Amino acid sequence: MQFLEDRIRRDGQVRPGNILKVDSFLNHQLDVNLLDQVGKAFYDEFKDCGINRILTIEASGIAIACMTARYFNVPVVFAKKAKSKNIDGDVYTSTVHSFTYGKDYDITLSKKYLGPDDKVLLVDDFLAVGKAMRGLIDVCSQAGATVGGIGIAIEKGFQEGGAYLRSQGYDVCSLAIVDHMTDDGKIYFRDADGSNVR
Amino acid sequence: MQFLEDRIRRDGQVRPGNILKVDSFLNHQLDVNLLDQVGKAFYDEFKDCGINRILTIEASGIAIACMTARYFNVPVVFAKKAKSKNIDGDVYTSTVHSFTYGKDYDITLSKKYLGPDDKVLLVDDFLAVGKAMRGLIDVCSQAGATVGGIGIAIEKGFQEGGAYLRSQGYDVCSLAIVDHMTDDGKIYFRDADGSNVR
Repeated sequence: MQFLEDRIRRDGQVRPGNILKVDSFLNHQLDVNLLDQVGKAFYDEFKDCGINRILTIEASGIAIACMTARYFNVPVVFAKKAKSKNIDGDVYTSTVHSFTYGKDYDITLSKKYLGPDDKVLLVDDFLAVGKAMRGLIDVCSQAGATVGGIGIAIEKGFQEGGAYLRSQGYDVCSLAIVDHMTDDGKIYFRDADGSNVR
Repeated sequence: MQFLEDRIRRDGQVRPGNILKVDSFLNHQLDVNLLDQVGKAFYDEFKDCGINRILTIEASGIAIACMTARYFNVPVVFAKKAKSKNIDGDVYTSTVHSFTYGKDYDITLSKKYLGPDDKVLLVDDFLAVGKAMRGLIDVCSQAGATVGGIGIAIEKGFQEGGAYLRSQGYDVCSLAIVDHMTDDGKIYFRDADGSNVR
């Protein structure tokens, strides 16, 4: 969407290794007005899908999930990346490989907060290889919950996560899809079908 | 405040070791309407303090910080618990001991997002021993930023964090202060000055 593409062009920074830094507004410092627009856009896309729960993964997904949940008026649940003493034993778990941190980690989600009656909107700030999202889908599968849609702020269209999820039949709404980035810092976006590179 | 005390009494669970589980609405599943009330309460308390930034620590603090920032119309910054490849080298760091996880961890915050011109509201879901909050205060001190206030959803009044911070002159607003809990699951609250146990 235009508002997010504009903001990424203005404040995003391209770094070697196809890294796109958006930590001035999306995942370290947070512009809550922008996040509110993100939440509104997800609501406009999925409001007729019977969503009764927003699911994300800590940490930066939490902000987007909360702003989205305000529009749907449903609870957020976030998967945790480490097992705390304070989580009861009865949890769903899935193993996720993080390319950002260069290691595997387990995500856990209490069985109390996801079940067969749930129709879930999965949201996250980034979709690249898609490992985190596949972990969340795995958790939904274990719970017998239905994935009603996937809302992503920024998809790295040159990595395989988005194509894989769409090939599996998931309704993925990425508000900005990066087609490619250049060494001198230019960022090109495209539509979900690969057309209209701009 | 009444709304939060009522909710804790209704949905909180007391566990051995003075653990108060509120993961059905505050730090695993999130009730965004309740979090909105929390944010509004912090705004009512600190709206005349010149706050220009909300600072918290991942992960569960992020939700409260976002809902609070909407009222103040200022950015959120959250300290990260692990050093990611995606964070530039130029960061403030502080070491925090987590009693929940039973280990030390470093928090990091990019120097770009906190400086001498900032007057910061620190927020978090829980205050117990106060190690995380002292880490955030340390980061503010390194940045030359002013701590304009501290907003806490639930303070464990029987642990030393709140008393310590108030003794250091910080303006701590805890919306619910747990005086003590009993083995059969009863939860007693009190005012910040120790009076009016209920």
